[in-house]
Amino acid sequence: MDTLERPATVTQTQRTEIEAQRQATHETRRATVPAMEALLYQPIPVLDHGFVRVIDYMGDDAAVVQAARVSYGAGTKKIREDAGLINYLMRHRHTSPFEMCEIKLHAKMPIFVAREWVRHRVANLNEISARFSILDNEFYLPAPEQLGAQSRSNRQGRGETLTGTESARVLEILREDAERGYAHYEEMLNENIAGETLDPAKSGLARELARMNLSVNFYTQWYWKIDLHNLLHFLGLRTDPRAQYEIRVYADAILEVVKQWVPLTHAAFMDYRMGAYELSAKGLAVVRRLLRGEQVDREGSGMSPGEWRELMETLER
Amino acid sequence: MDTLERPATVTQTQRTEIEAQRQATHETRRATVPAMEALLYQPIPVLDHGFVRVIDYMGDDAAVVQAARVSYGAGTKKIREDAGLINYLMRHRHTSPFEMCEIKLHAKMPIFVAREWVRHRVANLNEISARFSILDNEFYLPAPEQLGAQSRSNRQGRGETLTGTESARVLEILREDAERGYAHYEEMLNENIAGETLDPAKSGLARELARMNLSVNFYTQWYWKIDLHNLLHFLGLRTDPRAQYEIRVYADAILEVVKQWVPLTHAAFMDYRMGAYELSAKGLAVVRRLLRGEQVDREGSGMSPGEWRELMETLER
Amino acid sequence: MDTLERPATVTQTQRTEIEAQRQATHETRRATVPAMEALLYQPIPVLDHGFVRVIDYMGDDAAVVQAARVSYGAGTKKIREDAGLINYLMRHRHTSPFEMCEIKLHAKMPIFVAREWVRHRVANLNEISARFSILDNEFYLPAPEQLGAQSRSNRQGRGETLTGTESARVLEILREDAERGYAHYEEMLNENIAGETLDPAKSGLARELARMNLSVNFYTQWYWKIDLHNLLHFLGLRTDPRAQYEIRVYADAILEVVKQWVPLTHAAFMDYRMGAYELSAKGLAVVRRLLRGEQVDREGSGMSPGEWRELMETLER
Amino acid sequence: MDTLERPATVTQTQRTEIEAQRQATHETRRATVPAMEALLYQPIPVLDHGFVRVIDYMGDDAAVVQAARVSYGAGTKKIREDAGLINYLMRHRHTSPFEMCEIKLHAKMPIFVAREWVRHRVANLNEISARFSILDNEFYLPAPEQLGAQSRSNRQGRGETLTGTESARVLEILREDAERGYAHYEEMLNENIAGETLDPAKSGLARELARMNLSVNFYTQWYWKIDLHNLLHFLGLRTDPRAQYEIRVYADAILEVVKQWVPLTHAAFMDYRMGAYELSAKGLAVVRRLLRGEQVDREGSGMSPGEWRELMETLER
Repeated sequence: MDTLERPATVTQTQRTEIEAQRQATHETRRATVPAMEALLYQPIPVLDHGFVRVIDYMGDDAAVVQAARVSYGAGTKKIREDAGLINYLMRHRHTSPFEMCEIKLHAKMPIFVAREWVRHRVANLNEISARFSILDNEFYLPAPEQLGAQSRSNRQGRGETLTGTESARVLEILREDAERGYAHYEEMLNENIAGETLDPAKSGLARELARMNLSVNFYTQWYWKIDLHNLLHFLGLRTDPRAQYEIRVYADAILEVVKQWVPLTHAAFMDYRMGAYELSAKGLAVVRRLLRGEQVDREGSGMSPGEWRELMETLER
Repeated sequence: MDTLERPATVTQTQRTEIEAQRQATHETRRATVPAMEALLYQPIPVLDHGFVRVIDYMGDDAAVVQAARVSYGAGTKKIREDAGLINYLMRHRHTSPFEMCEIKLHAKMPIFVAREWVRHRVANLNEISARFSILDNEFYLPAPEQLGAQSRSNRQGRGETLTGTESARVLEILREDAERGYAHYEEMLNENIAGETLDPAKSGLARELARMNLSVNFYTQWYWKIDLHNLLHFLGLRTDPRAQYEIRVYADAILEVVKQWVPLTHAAFMDYRMGAYELSAKGLAVVRRLLRGEQVDREGSGMSPGEWRELMETLER
Repeated sequence: MDTLERPATVTQTQRTEIEAQRQATHETRRATVPAMEALLYQPIPVLDHGFVRVIDYMGDDAAVVQAARVSYGAGTKKIREDAGLINYLMRHRHTSPFEMCEIKLHAKMPIFVAREWVRHRVANLNEISARFSILDNEFYLPAPEQLGAQSRSNRQGRGETLTGTESARVLEILREDAERGYAHYEEMLNENIAGETLDPAKSGLARELARMNLSVNFYTQWYWKIDLHNLLHFLGLRTDPRAQYEIRVYADAILEVVKQWVPLTHAAFMDYRMGAYELSAKGLAVVRRLLRGEQVDREGSGMSPGEWRELMETLER
Repeated sequence: MDTLERPATVTQTQRTEIEAQRQATHETRRATVPAMEALLYQPIPVLDHGFVRVIDYMGDDAAVVQAARVSYGAGTKKIREDAGLINYLMRHRHTSPFEMCEIKLHAKMPIFVAREWVRHRVANLNEISARFSILDNEFYLPAPEQLGAQSRSNRQGRGETLTGTESARVLEILREDAERGYAHYEEMLNENIAGETLDPAKSGLARELARMNLSVNFYTQWYWKIDLHNLLHFLGLRTDPRAQYEIRVYADAILEVVKQWVPLTHAAFMDYRMGAYELSAKGLAVVRRLLRGEQVDREGSGMSPGEWRELMETLER
């Protein structure tokens, strides 16, 4: 996959910088993951103008094991291999060994995605400042197949795709309003992105004020650093089907990075978190009764209709 | 001060709810601050449609003292009165006793203000979700005297006020683009804020997508809970003249609340943080030499031009 | 239950202070929980000299609901009652609404318990300082029935109770070493707990050094403030049978407080966390196959012996 | 410096492991600091049996600059060199760019030091578990010149050194009680550190209980991972003369590591934090008046005697 194909995502200047970063190699005594070295600095495209790229990483699967062995002592070494220990830690929701790995990403995403992303507080963040810099003229337009109607079953999701006519009108609105908003942004600044003054007779509004006119589908970007435990928590929530599509695609891309970085941890995460299902006390009672061959119905279960439906679907009954 | 004057800030329904909340009183054995009881639930207006109001609080100046005395022992009681102990704690940057007080605020602010605010991570937050709800048609328009040009000395601030013509054009742009953005938001939703369908032949775009068309001067709101130490840190940064005006006015309003809530802590904060000046090692060396009557110039000080200018202004020389 | 019976736990001075705190009542407009008012300040005894007591609280079940409704909008009100909404939030692992309640406890526990407790980082803490104060001569001695041998199945737990002879010897060691350690502590300080100098010819070692001679079963105490979400996380881990008995009894006592404080949240927590069981992807596949009437054995499941045994026990097969 | 000289600090097995870790080198595209590569894995001795050693690091001075430039835009590049930008960030207490570097240390320290250390909550930690492992027979004994009397001026510090007789008695107590405590620990475990059963007729007490008999000068160890901003905060507090000597020596050793790792950040930290002095509002007023040649005395300053004395000493008057 040539991740650099789409000219709008990364400028020529950035592309040159990235190539320079990728050329320079150094000797190190630190834990190193060859698959991550291959990924380093390369933008992975997400949405129409966004990306995620790995800037740095610390540790690997062995660092998780090493940290756990500090806690549990050398005796552990005899009885469990690395994969078994990582599975054990994930299954029992041990967290601190996974905090011993760290990753730093450079990501570019629409502002409304950034607003959801930043709710994950245990992370470090440097975002481009629109008080200081002029933002690029880049905004997100959904692909037509992503234009869903408001869902009826899920009050915060989207349902069936809009018809062609309604969809075309939506894209027309989004494009025209964003383009007008940006043109007015430049007019108020009295300056364009290249730094040229537009009208020598005007002063130009402060950047921190002019930015008010941009809508939340404009792109922002940041450096984001997080430990592996908190990253997995983020991924568990943001790859969920109930998460909004536009942040889910970032989470999906990062989950692929995690697979390259810490394959044993990734496998354990897929088994014990992503593919897992938590039975409530009531749900567990239902399963036990079913396994004994008893008849169970919702009324007897004490569960709400939504819970019951979800349980029956999960059990494939 | 009748804080409920401006109809746009709080709806009639909210006003009725607030009055009901204020009527109900209970007996409690907990620490109680009469001045805060008087403030509770009342919106304090900020900007053109925003507000801050106190929803709950825990602790008072005595709770800070009590926590410090747990650490330092009863012996402290003999040698320091409460105010003296609070001054001591603030001066020596002790933090944990101030973490023993907590406050919960309901605040309404433009999205671009919320984006700066949320960078303070050690706080609890519930924000209105535009995936779930339709946002109100309320957006921030600066007062004309706030429309400053880009500052030349401070790359992230604003300088002189724009002329009347330029200022009028800016307000025209901001108003028209926000109104058009909201009208298009309703059109894409195929629903207005009252929940009425606009065109029965259309499906309406999902809320989580339609919101993309709103600019960052639209208002959002949240419940925000934070401990006193982290609140003071927030206030120290956000009441600073270098903070953007639009978040500074929220910080100013909250600082007044703090003054009512914990007057001793507030006084210590004003002396040891807000009015304080940190001399660097080089700055301290300059002050010592000046006090000995020596001549000192910037070259001999090792300071940068910016630092030197700031030091001389602070020392009033 | 007269929680003040055991004279060693709370001194006469403290008892008087507590009674004074309990007498004073105030009017408040804040959310108030009568059952918590009844509990306030009262020490709940734990272990031989420890206790937990509630110093302050903020919010109630309704505050959780209120915060969720800010996020999800007024529409929620129509479709869900409070208990249903709290169940929904707990089931889907929503966290921020539960962060809107806060509690402050005063707890006294052995140092080795405090060392486990403090690993829960999202909390505020003021601990008595042995650099500043002289610690009391109070140390933990297990009840004889708590003196278990090292477990073979669980490498970090205890198994069968020791015989009478072995148990008596253990208690003799623990008591004598603690008493000697404290006597030597006073000798090195050249001062007793009452502040009396022991030998006028000696200087007395600094407190920060003399404390080194105390063993980790000596009692310490602290004020601890935490939000409800993080408290429930603490309780989930520390009421677990794998947690050490000596911290579990504190968690059990606090869980009872939570039941008084936020009964709806407590009920949801019992159903969706405490009594829940998380099926891994492999475990879920096993349950589906069993429900279809298929034969499944461990080899075909891909599970480890430990996982398989735990699953079969949980399913009561 | 041969950091491996003292046999008690690192066992022969550990020494061999360390040498193996140091031999293995890899190619990496990540930012690499040669001075840190030289330090990696080597124990730096602290106190009589403790150490600190670097296990991993992420980023360098350039990573701080890079993160700041994301926020402030490329324009910054023209006007400030790296050192100037780092000075600017430190002076204005910007924190997020310094959070973009991370370090992982393995440290071994007495339990009472660990108890102070762990109060720094924004860090990741895996500590050896005495529920799982048998602790080594290693405890801290102060050097005689460190045996200070309780300070009179500083209630939480130490003053003059004890006389030879008193000092000898203190060391005798500390040594004998620790040795007896450990011997009784093995007796209760019915097992020694080599895993040999002592008395086949006894069961042996569970490790989680037997550990109760060890005093807080026994050594523990952990892996500790923290970002550069929070590390500097830790170092600022723990290298302070008011910090206890036994944690200060760890902070001093880590500050030397920081100097190797990020020399520009270290220099800025020394100038703007370590050597800085914060004038309160009242203190600043005093300095201004002195510079105008006015007479100022404590009464007119509004300062407490302690503050006044400290200010006059700092100003060298």
